Amino acid sequence: MLGVTILGNNSAIPAYGRHPTAQVLITNTESFLIDCGEGTQMQMALYKIKKSKINCVFISHLHGDHYFGLIGFLTSQSLSGRKDELTIFGPPALQQIIQLQLNVADTILSYPLHFVPLTTETEIYKTTKISVHCFKVEHRIDCWGFFFKEIKNPRKIDAARCKSFEVPQAYFTKLQMGQDYVTQKGTIIKNKELTIAATPPKSYAYCADTIFLPSIATKIMGATLLYHEATYLTGLEELAAQRYHSTTTQAAQIALQAKAHKLLIGHFSSKYPSLTEFAIEAKTVFNNTELAVEGVTFII
Amino acid sequence: MLGVTILGNNSAIPAYGRHPTAQVLITNTESFLIDCGEGTQMQMALYKIKKSKINCVFISHLHGDHYFGLIGFLTSQSLSGRKDELTIFGPPALQQIIQLQLNVADTILSYPLHFVPLTTETEIYKTTKISVHCFKVEHRIDCWGFFFKEIKNPRKIDAARCKSFEVPQAYFTKLQMGQDYVTQKGTIIKNKELTIAATPPKSYAYCADTIFLPSIATKIMGATLLYHEATYLTGLEELAAQRYHSTTTQAAQIALQAKAHKLLIGHFSSKYPSLTEFAIEAKTVFNNTELAVEGVTFII
Repeated sequence: MLGVTILGNNSAIPAYGRHPTAQVLITNTESFLIDCGEGTQMQMALYKIKKSKINCVFISHLHGDHYFGLIGFLTSQSLSGRKDELTIFGPPALQQIIQLQLNVADTILSYPLHFVPLTTETEIYKTTKISVHCFKVEHRIDCWGFFFKEIKNPRKIDAARCKSFEVPQAYFTKLQMGQDYVTQKGTIIKNKELTIAATPPKSYAYCADTIFLPSIATKIMGATLLYHEATYLTGLEELAAQRYHSTTTQAAQIALQAKAHKLLIGHFSSKYPSLTEFAIEAKTVFNNTELAVEGVTFII
Repeated sequence: MLGVTILGNNSAIPAYGRHPTAQVLITNTESFLIDCGEGTQMQMALYKIKKSKINCVFISHLHGDHYFGLIGFLTSQSLSGRKDELTIFGPPALQQIIQLQLNVADTILSYPLHFVPLTTETEIYKTTKISVHCFKVEHRIDCWGFFFKEIKNPRKIDAARCKSFEVPQAYFTKLQMGQDYVTQKGTIIKNKELTIAATPPKSYAYCADTIFLPSIATKIMGATLLYHEATYLTGLEELAAQRYHSTTTQAAQIALQAKAHKLLIGHFSSKYPSLTEFAIEAKTVFNNTELAVEGVTFII
């Protein structure tokens, strides 16, 4: 299972009850915090996010609406007595900012905090269940996108069939990988007799903040869910480009080119009291679009 | 007029809908922000505080629940196109933290930002209407209290009497200062014939965060309104001392010793879901006590 809960969907200045960017990606085994604008810890409390379960934080860039809430999250976790380690992936200067603020407060965190500086497009995290790649997007300062991909064996065990053929459990992993089973008497039982096709691995691509950059599509090809910023409505392409942001239809074009299954748009400009037009416009280009509404969990 | 609006009254971790410390002190001519915990700019929006009117910020110390919202407030003001200068009074390292965060974001503020490092107990701000002194309190790291005092002439013009004696307006300031009026013919008209006593100047003393320190009382003697932290209920004096905080009755004792007119207590520990006992306990020592309830403006 992959699901993403939106904690903040606004850009720059908080407005109309909308908060700066923050999301939580939940897998079967882990919780990832993606960006952490001011007030994220309060939003987590409001939407019942288990802060202590978060083991990795991914920060896209060092504009305040994407990280000003991080130091508060980190220190509150310490005040709550957290023991489990936490790893932050972000631009190199982030470590200096955090360390300086801990130093002046004479604070030693109650848990091990690791820091992985983002410097090149690569795989930055991997378990048996998930991998995370970072990739460059184009913003006024260095900014990173993240591509979270489930790792799955291609086949699922057909328990009834395995039982009838008396396949020992020790062989199950090999069967899940697609291998045939050879009985003690040397009989080959084809993999397809014992397994069924697994559902394809799900993926989540996160793209904030960026100018309209078609080359992004190749980096997140086939994403099950693509989050792409859409700061402005269509017609403000020039302003968007000046500020290294995108419009609704530009975000939708990236989804189309990346052959994404579904598009989520957010990072709405504070100039818009209502978000209705954002969905309408994006759907004209990519129909399976939803607004990143705060408090909503999108199952991927 | 002096009035203080409470934007946050909790300590350390936000809890039970309570926010970290922030207050706005409003005078007839200025608005001062006192401490600025995470989420202050959202609380300002909620309680209709005019952010652009704030011309001075006073930061007591560099524990996050007193300043993590400052960088967001400063940058949002810039994004809103503020032109008026802003002055921050705070511990010296605060300037480095702010500057570092502006640098990594490649941000140049839209308005002049001044910084006054607090290093010694002195008058740090003065206009014709108000003076501000900083004084040391005792916390785990360097921490400052602030004493805001109205400046008032001791006498008010009695307009009808002045008219009957044909006193030119040019003499009014001297009359307000207590001088007699000498007519062109050399007749002395006593000040008391032309003026009435002005109400005494009001004052606001802000004491956060501090261990119980009776010597504070001498520094804020006669405060009209005293805000003193009361992190814990009575009975937890030992824990309070360990953490350099105070209890309800300790705060009330300071109010008593300082001959304050009224006491406001806040900075409540996150361990307390309800605040009822805080008021009850403090009133046993100092009856004119109120809780620093968020959103409430206390007229001084």
